[in-house]
Amino acid sequence: MSHEQHQNLIDSLHECAVACNHCFDACLKEEDVKMMAECIRLDRECADICSYLEHALSRNTPFAAELAAVCAKICEACGNECKKHDHEHCQKCAEACFKCAEACKSIA
Amino acid sequence: MSHEQHQNLIDSLHECAVACNHCFDACLKEEDVKMMAECIRLDRECADICSYLEHALSRNTPFAAELAAVCAKICEACGNECKKHDHEHCQKCAEACFKCAEACKSIA
Amino acid sequence: MSHEQHQNLIDSLHECAVACNHCFDACLKEEDVKMMAECIRLDRECADICSYLEHALSRNTPFAAELAAVCAKICEACGNECKKHDHEHCQKCAEACFKCAEACKSIA
Amino acid sequence: MSHEQHQNLIDSLHECAVACNHCFDACLKEEDVKMMAECIRLDRECADICSYLEHALSRNTPFAAELAAVCAKICEACGNECKKHDHEHCQKCAEACFKCAEACKSIA
Repeated sequence: MSHEQHQNLIDSLHECAVACNHCFDACLKEEDVKMMAECIRLDRECADICSYLEHALSRNTPFAAELAAVCAKICEACGNECKKHDHEHCQKCAEACFKCAEACKSIA
Repeated sequence: MSHEQHQNLIDSLHECAVACNHCFDACLKEEDVKMMAECIRLDRECADICSYLEHALSRNTPFAAELAAVCAKICEACGNECKKHDHEHCQKCAEACFKCAEACKSIA
Repeated sequence: MSHEQHQNLIDSLHECAVACNHCFDACLKEEDVKMMAECIRLDRECADICSYLEHALSRNTPFAAELAAVCAKICEACGNECKKHDHEHCQKCAEACFKCAEACKSIA
Repeated sequence: MSHEQHQNLIDSLHECAVACNHCFDACLKEEDVKMMAECIRLDRECADICSYLEHALSRNTPFAAELAAVCAKICEACGNECKKHDHEHCQKCAEACFKCAEACKSIA
């Protein structure tokens, strides 16, 4: 599939990476940081793999399907952790993660 | 400055990174790849630093100004190389690079 | 597995990423760049995923096995392309790629 | 300067990135995570920029000096934060950061 055909996935990956980075920053500013430790860890992992895949797709990587399969797993894990927390940044992040996981699965 | 205030810059960085990665892929498929060697090199560097800065901003890095100053230089170098070539992907990439360089300078 | 237990893999990933980046640079300086186009593309992909995995391991990512499986595939593809070319940088890169692929498979 | 001439700096960057990632992981497992929030933030930034620069050098980036100047600043900020904390991972990380900052300055 070409760069253009991946446009929806590229957009979902970008939104997810930004949401995860925003959640990472916000979690570090919460009163109870200890409770957010796993969220912080997964936000970083998810932001990084989404950013990786987004740019790999935009340069027509031959490994789109394999990378998308891993990315979907990481997005789901991050979304599952985020949705446990009531903070708005966590809820928004969970939503972006689940949407991105579905988009990844469509090419995995 | 917060994540929200950087939104225009984040968008410019994202567009520039995608344009550079698209140009990288297209240059490697050109008839005369040798002529595109410097473009290929700078496309990678520019895509990578724009992606880096975009995500650093979205997690509220304390080093926005310093990173944006370097990013502006790399965007300009990539834009200057790309605009030498008539290929549509190069011309589009040059445009995205110069726009991004200006956006970077606004916070550098 | 902990950061310490992954030390051999971290070393192989690091050597492979550096070899791929060196090969990328050297390919762009070859007389016949067109012949090296696929090598240039795969060198970038392989360097980037090895670097990603190396740092993911060093922060104890929960996704070591999944990422290593993808990385092994990319290392093999890059090694197979590099070994077609007689340049010393390609031969060295192929060797680093195959060694890294094996190390990745040991945890995948 | 060529890839070979940068070997010492490449090694320092690699050690620093690994130390920062290890410290990031260890900070998230501490009893008092809130006290480590700034350390966690800077560990990520420092690991990421060191990894970026290491790989940029290994592909002969034309922007070594500019990137090294920013990297030195980030390494120093991370080292200054880490050295405030008595945990062994923080002290080791501070040491790697200051060593890397010096190595960066030698080419900045």
